[in-house]
Amino acid sequence: MTTIIRGGTVVNADRAFRADVLCYGDKIVAVGENLDAPHSAKVIDASGQYVMPGGIDTHTHMNLPFMGTVTQDDFYTGTAAGLAGGTTTIMDFVIPAPKQNLIEAYHQWRGWAQKAAGDYTFHVAITWWDETVHRDMGILVRDHGVNSFKHFMAYKNAIMADDETLVKSFRRSLELGAIPTVHAENGELVYQLQQDLLKKGLTGPSSHPLSRPPAVEAEAANRAIAIANVLNTPVYIVHVSCAESLDAITRARANGQRVYGEALAGHLVIDDSVYQSEDLDYAAGHVMSPPFRSKHHQAALWHGLQGGNLHTTATDHCTFCAEQKAAGRDDFTKIPNGCGGVEDRMSVVWDAGVNTGLLTPSEFVKVTSTNAAQIFNMYPRKGVIAVGADADIVVWDPEGSRTISSLTQFAKGGFNVFEGRTVRGIPSTTLAAGNVVFHRGVLMAVEGAGRHIDRPAFKPASAR
Amino acid sequence: MTTIIRGGTVVNADRAFRADVLCYGDKIVAVGENLDAPHSAKVIDASGQYVMPGGIDTHTHMNLPFMGTVTQDDFYTGTAAGLAGGTTTIMDFVIPAPKQNLIEAYHQWRGWAQKAAGDYTFHVAITWWDETVHRDMGILVRDHGVNSFKHFMAYKNAIMADDETLVKSFRRSLELGAIPTVHAENGELVYQLQQDLLKKGLTGPSSHPLSRPPAVEAEAANRAIAIANVLNTPVYIVHVSCAESLDAITRARANGQRVYGEALAGHLVIDDSVYQSEDLDYAAGHVMSPPFRSKHHQAALWHGLQGGNLHTTATDHCTFCAEQKAAGRDDFTKIPNGCGGVEDRMSVVWDAGVNTGLLTPSEFVKVTSTNAAQIFNMYPRKGVIAVGADADIVVWDPEGSRTISSLTQFAKGGFNVFEGRTVRGIPSTTLAAGNVVFHRGVLMAVEGAGRHIDRPAFKPASAR
Amino acid sequence: MTTIIRGGTVVNADRAFRADVLCYGDKIVAVGENLDAPHSAKVIDASGQYVMPGGIDTHTHMNLPFMGTVTQDDFYTGTAAGLAGGTTTIMDFVIPAPKQNLIEAYHQWRGWAQKAAGDYTFHVAITWWDETVHRDMGILVRDHGVNSFKHFMAYKNAIMADDETLVKSFRRSLELGAIPTVHAENGELVYQLQQDLLKKGLTGPSSHPLSRPPAVEAEAANRAIAIANVLNTPVYIVHVSCAESLDAITRARANGQRVYGEALAGHLVIDDSVYQSEDLDYAAGHVMSPPFRSKHHQAALWHGLQGGNLHTTATDHCTFCAEQKAAGRDDFTKIPNGCGGVEDRMSVVWDAGVNTGLLTPSEFVKVTSTNAAQIFNMYPRKGVIAVGADADIVVWDPEGSRTISSLTQFAKGGFNVFEGRTVRGIPSTTLAAGNVVFHRGVLMAVEGAGRHIDRPAFKPASAR
Amino acid sequence: MTTIIRGGTVVNADRAFRADVLCYGDKIVAVGENLDAPHSAKVIDASGQYVMPGGIDTHTHMNLPFMGTVTQDDFYTGTAAGLAGGTTTIMDFVIPAPKQNLIEAYHQWRGWAQKAAGDYTFHVAITWWDETVHRDMGILVRDHGVNSFKHFMAYKNAIMADDETLVKSFRRSLELGAIPTVHAENGELVYQLQQDLLKKGLTGPSSHPLSRPPAVEAEAANRAIAIANVLNTPVYIVHVSCAESLDAITRARANGQRVYGEALAGHLVIDDSVYQSEDLDYAAGHVMSPPFRSKHHQAALWHGLQGGNLHTTATDHCTFCAEQKAAGRDDFTKIPNGCGGVEDRMSVVWDAGVNTGLLTPSEFVKVTSTNAAQIFNMYPRKGVIAVGADADIVVWDPEGSRTISSLTQFAKGGFNVFEGRTVRGIPSTTLAAGNVVFHRGVLMAVEGAGRHIDRPAFKPASAR
Repeated sequence: MTTIIRGGTVVNADRAFRADVLCYGDKIVAVGENLDAPHSAKVIDASGQYVMPGGIDTHTHMNLPFMGTVTQDDFYTGTAAGLAGGTTTIMDFVIPAPKQNLIEAYHQWRGWAQKAAGDYTFHVAITWWDETVHRDMGILVRDHGVNSFKHFMAYKNAIMADDETLVKSFRRSLELGAIPTVHAENGELVYQLQQDLLKKGLTGPSSHPLSRPPAVEAEAANRAIAIANVLNTPVYIVHVSCAESLDAITRARANGQRVYGEALAGHLVIDDSVYQSEDLDYAAGHVMSPPFRSKHHQAALWHGLQGGNLHTTATDHCTFCAEQKAAGRDDFTKIPNGCGGVEDRMSVVWDAGVNTGLLTPSEFVKVTSTNAAQIFNMYPRKGVIAVGADADIVVWDPEGSRTISSLTQFAKGGFNVFEGRTVRGIPSTTLAAGNVVFHRGVLMAVEGAGRHIDRPAFKPASAR
Repeated sequence: MTTIIRGGTVVNADRAFRADVLCYGDKIVAVGENLDAPHSAKVIDASGQYVMPGGIDTHTHMNLPFMGTVTQDDFYTGTAAGLAGGTTTIMDFVIPAPKQNLIEAYHQWRGWAQKAAGDYTFHVAITWWDETVHRDMGILVRDHGVNSFKHFMAYKNAIMADDETLVKSFRRSLELGAIPTVHAENGELVYQLQQDLLKKGLTGPSSHPLSRPPAVEAEAANRAIAIANVLNTPVYIVHVSCAESLDAITRARANGQRVYGEALAGHLVIDDSVYQSEDLDYAAGHVMSPPFRSKHHQAALWHGLQGGNLHTTATDHCTFCAEQKAAGRDDFTKIPNGCGGVEDRMSVVWDAGVNTGLLTPSEFVKVTSTNAAQIFNMYPRKGVIAVGADADIVVWDPEGSRTISSLTQFAKGGFNVFEGRTVRGIPSTTLAAGNVVFHRGVLMAVEGAGRHIDRPAFKPASAR
Repeated sequence: MTTIIRGGTVVNADRAFRADVLCYGDKIVAVGENLDAPHSAKVIDASGQYVMPGGIDTHTHMNLPFMGTVTQDDFYTGTAAGLAGGTTTIMDFVIPAPKQNLIEAYHQWRGWAQKAAGDYTFHVAITWWDETVHRDMGILVRDHGVNSFKHFMAYKNAIMADDETLVKSFRRSLELGAIPTVHAENGELVYQLQQDLLKKGLTGPSSHPLSRPPAVEAEAANRAIAIANVLNTPVYIVHVSCAESLDAITRARANGQRVYGEALAGHLVIDDSVYQSEDLDYAAGHVMSPPFRSKHHQAALWHGLQGGNLHTTATDHCTFCAEQKAAGRDDFTKIPNGCGGVEDRMSVVWDAGVNTGLLTPSEFVKVTSTNAAQIFNMYPRKGVIAVGADADIVVWDPEGSRTISSLTQFAKGGFNVFEGRTVRGIPSTTLAAGNVVFHRGVLMAVEGAGRHIDRPAFKPASAR
Repeated sequence: MTTIIRGGTVVNADRAFRADVLCYGDKIVAVGENLDAPHSAKVIDASGQYVMPGGIDTHTHMNLPFMGTVTQDDFYTGTAAGLAGGTTTIMDFVIPAPKQNLIEAYHQWRGWAQKAAGDYTFHVAITWWDETVHRDMGILVRDHGVNSFKHFMAYKNAIMADDETLVKSFRRSLELGAIPTVHAENGELVYQLQQDLLKKGLTGPSSHPLSRPPAVEAEAANRAIAIANVLNTPVYIVHVSCAESLDAITRARANGQRVYGEALAGHLVIDDSVYQSEDLDYAAGHVMSPPFRSKHHQAALWHGLQGGNLHTTATDHCTFCAEQKAAGRDDFTKIPNGCGGVEDRMSVVWDAGVNTGLLTPSEFVKVTSTNAAQIFNMYPRKGVIAVGADADIVVWDPEGSRTISSLTQFAKGGFNVFEGRTVRGIPSTTLAAGNVVFHRGVLMAVEGAGRHIDRPAFKPASAR
């Protein structure tokens, strides 16, 4: 199929310029002014609008098994919601249970992802260690298109990686040309603080942020960065939520170390007052880790994106319904951690970032798409409007607006942390692999149309 | 004329890839694998080599009037030397004498530049202030392709701009969509330290660095950044030479402020031991401001380039011969400040940066060309290998090497701060505006072939 | 006269311990448990209370001439108010008009101070420069007990010292064994911002903080510190009001430089919401420079006191009545700058610092008295409860409380920035030079009883 | 016995002043000018000299059991060597083996210490955790004069404390009014780096510093500080050896956290070139952890002492003879870690600190004695020349000098890291508990004369 997007301003990470974009099959085949197109071509009018590479959400959990059930969004509904919001690729996580074979887990997730409507790719979590893990990391990189491994420094007695695992897995990653990533929270401190709070009878969701203060996150970020420094490997810190954690990244980068940081759309605009709500379901709906923070952290995260110390934006999309959240009614540590957002990230970041003058449109593209593609080695297939790139395109209407609500969203779960927020700047059309999958509010996502994106290994010249 | 560069690896700031590059007239007209080219096309074999955008030296002084004479290199010899080293565009400075009309000074420099062999463009210095300066800044931006103004915070009793001038000129720049740049040294402190040293009889060149310690530079950098912060304008700091000055930039950027920094090739690899030489001509030959620094500053500057807190590399090319330097034989404050380097920058930065693993080839392109083009609004005409860009191209032989010497250089002045340094990584061929101007050691620079590059004003969405 | 203070806990900067304190004449003659005292001795019961060295307010302006009138508090009422609040020594400022002879100005202030009820000593401001200033600084240090000089970096077109004056005066201070101090705000930026605001018709007091943002203060602090660094002299920054300015001090101290910082009681607890009041007299009553800041700066200042990066607390006591403040009704730049506080500082710092656990009682003594005495070379005559020290003592009732109000204060001016604040921790008795001058709410200050405190020069081993 | 020290300059942390010092029994009984003394009093002429509180070495290991043998210095020779150098109190370590009962270990060390010639007191290491450890910490604080607990974050598979132990022990310390201290090195990273080096055949002592780079130390310091921050307890970092680790302390202190740091005399003046010696015995003689660092770290540590971010100086005195060191001839990880210095610290710090102008004499006293006494609650019994204090006094001859050598030292082990260093500034006389124990080179130490110093618990008002 041939499609031509006419009259818009193409926005790439390096510049914005007037051009038409011609797509054939799943690829972009021409970018330029006044392009010719076959008569049969579908024409999309982008006048007055921006034409940008489809968003990449570097952090989602679709179909995540949890306590005998799973998150509300599976790979179909989750990726479809993403397409509605202008996100055309998600990076999800294979999370083997401790002692579970990595390859087996990988195939499990690949199976669940068959129904995806948009492209997807997987980080694989290293939740335990022995020689088979060492071996299987190699197989995943060589044969299965995996080039990033995730490490949870939190969740003691479950999937927490101790220093020995971190060191061994970081080193193995370096050897393989993969990049280690971390969820940075000191799991021991979280555990002790949780026990304290429960002992004091503070069992409600307002205890959740008290059990995970910024120092707990910054400690772990600093530790992961130090390990990476010693081993001379790059490292990527997921969901940086606080100034102190960002400071650890900023210090390392100023020292020449290759450290990357990810900010969640939620952390950029929502503060911790949500946990004080008298509506406990509302408070529980916001329980995720790291938690939302006090206001000055939001300003810090924006500064991080502006100054190049944070690189990507994501959501940690992981939807649980009220009934699932209710599992922690009497014990906040049992509230399933997770919030949504895959559908809203692009608009939230645009509205709070570009409309306010904090980011230029090119910087927006950088932090919603291009940097992710480059860091995880999908560039220039993803992350740029250019000849040869995948025709994953969002036509962005800077004057369009919508009010976010769980009542009108495509994502499941019946809850939205951005509920009631009116955003100006929305996708008018989304193309995925050359197909129009969303247009003016109508979602045309096709179950199973999404593809797994193999990400080849890379050898950084050096980690610093 | 049509030229095709075959078989190389194109290196842009965002990625490196195998492609041929086809040039027609002064433009790049195709980039791709196995391109067709007319039989008449000149073929350049780039196999095993990198094909990169020509270097931009953001800081040169050709034909600079000084005490009734001028620098050794005029616009012809200076730009020609640049072409030999892979630099196809220089950014020079119009420096009006105090009270001199800006437009008059601008035309003076434009006249001198007529003979240039490579492209050039001008920063205009604001060395004094009244309403005509305010007016003429507008004329320069609107009618003469100037979008950057330079301010000397040093050189008391000469061209030093005081805080009032800085504030007024920065604000005017913002209004016009131009970017203010500063030479950051506290001129009052330099002056007092100079007087002290002279009073103590310390009149030799070894006093030069003592009169301009890092704190003197860092103070001024911090002050310029603070003024920019208060006025909400971006700012560009030229020749950042020390860790303390870089720290001021890093702090501001981490706080979301749009501050840019330039490193000189010399400051990246030469330390202050040169001033201790018993050969006073040798020591005087290294007198420039800011001076060369102790070794740990070099490491800091590299970290700045790696972490994105420094953005461009330049030379402050400003050549005086031994006889001119001798004017300060009995008084180091009278030694004309300046060193060369326009011919050597690319190789020096590659050798010390890429060969050591500090920078990837793409990062090399970023800091030698792309960032400069973007910051000063010449992109994508300059700074990228892409269709439509100027055919300013350097074919880079990563295995070629040469030993730098004033005996073999094209630049004038009979002195070279990199004397004796063997660099691996040299241009095999340079194209300027589609013409082969340097090939395998042979310079074919044409006097007058260089063009003035108009740089349109831009409106940053916001300074932070 | 002999007085014995029985049963209290003596608090010095180094420790707290149970002891009686015996005073004879104007000195402390014994400190120990169960001291003998003559039958005639006046006995003060300090049981359950702390016995601390009298407070030193390092920054006051009594009897300050202004536009043909003077501040409301003269040296009698001002020092008397201090005694009521536990402050027994003030450090005031001789501020010569530009071109005024320093010695003449000094004697003018000494004359005004004759009526003081408590001890006093003077910083002398260097507001202009020529050889007579250089000479007179020497006379002041050698013959008049002055060891500190003040420099205003703000107040353009009035008493602002430019860089040349700063450099020359700092150097002269070093030579003489005196310490330079600065009011750190960039006067040029303040002036330009004021003009902008006035041009926009923003003439009310809410424009005052907008004309003096934190960056304006931090710039000047950093500049003064850099000059001190280059000249190798210590430096003292008065009224540090914001995080950015404190950061400059913290960086310098971490680098081994001897920099001292002063916090005002007002800046520690009052935020900038006061300028938004619809009661313009109320807003104008809070106009001082630097202005009150947003809340996070208060937290930063407390951290500065805790971590040893700020050293003293003061008030900048400078009282103008509503009628005087009204001079700026139509132009905020004409509102006389100044607020009171000499009477309230000790209680405000105790209540907000010690009652909250931020400071120990010994740390309170350090930042309200001992550090000031040491930095300005009055120690151990002032700043400690020890044999041989002046009998300037405050008996502190940690359980006593009062509600601050201009209706009940001893200070003049009819306004109090702490109005309505209830503080726990108040002086029950104040002794000055061995005399009980305040007891249980009754002030017994004697006009003219205060003495000038000569402060000898000192030679720091090194400035860093 | 009565002794009077006449004509010297008493130096305390707060000031220096001319005074005689009269001692009776083990106490100072008078400090003042022209004191009367009984005819029988021993008179020490201190004219032209300083009279300072005896040094406190906060970090020694006497009689440390190791591989079936013990360190060369036992409590007699070690404390005697200290007295010869002006150190009158040592703080040693009880180090229970994993699973060893704490009280039993404590008594073991107390037994070994019976023969001490100078005063001593013990930090107790927490090397494992269960409920008996929790209980015994309480017994040690309440009944045995212990108020500090040590935690090794290094030495995996031996005495390393994991995060769980750190959290539980820090919290228990806070509850008891004791201060936690840490040896900050990430044991996992050290272990992995050691294994790597050994695998590569790099088995010599030059591998030692490679296995413990600064990032390894800084990570652990930062982690301990974060844990202390979260639990709201103070924390003391032993042997801070590098800029990065100091930075972690400086950041925390600037944020108001109560963190203390200790520098070793060796780390202040010796750099890592010692490990490159071809004399492997010499290199092995310098093996201690953290290792000696490159030169710029020394400058940083001095800045830390100057700026108040480091507080104490110590030695980690732990002497092994060449034969013992030879155990690691074929495997650097088996070289017993430890160097001497208790005899030399005071002179080394004076010579490199005071003679160079980095520290004033009062600051010298602060970092060699007073701060230690205050942080560990021995003040004012120790750490000050004042009535009532222990008569632990060093008469310091600022003009005397000696050349340090293992041939002339009193300490055992036959090796000295300061070998050949000539220091100016030496003790002429040392008094311990009122007895002259060293005079003009003659040591009169008495076995068993030393006393255990009970240190009561304290409750910090707050940890920050």
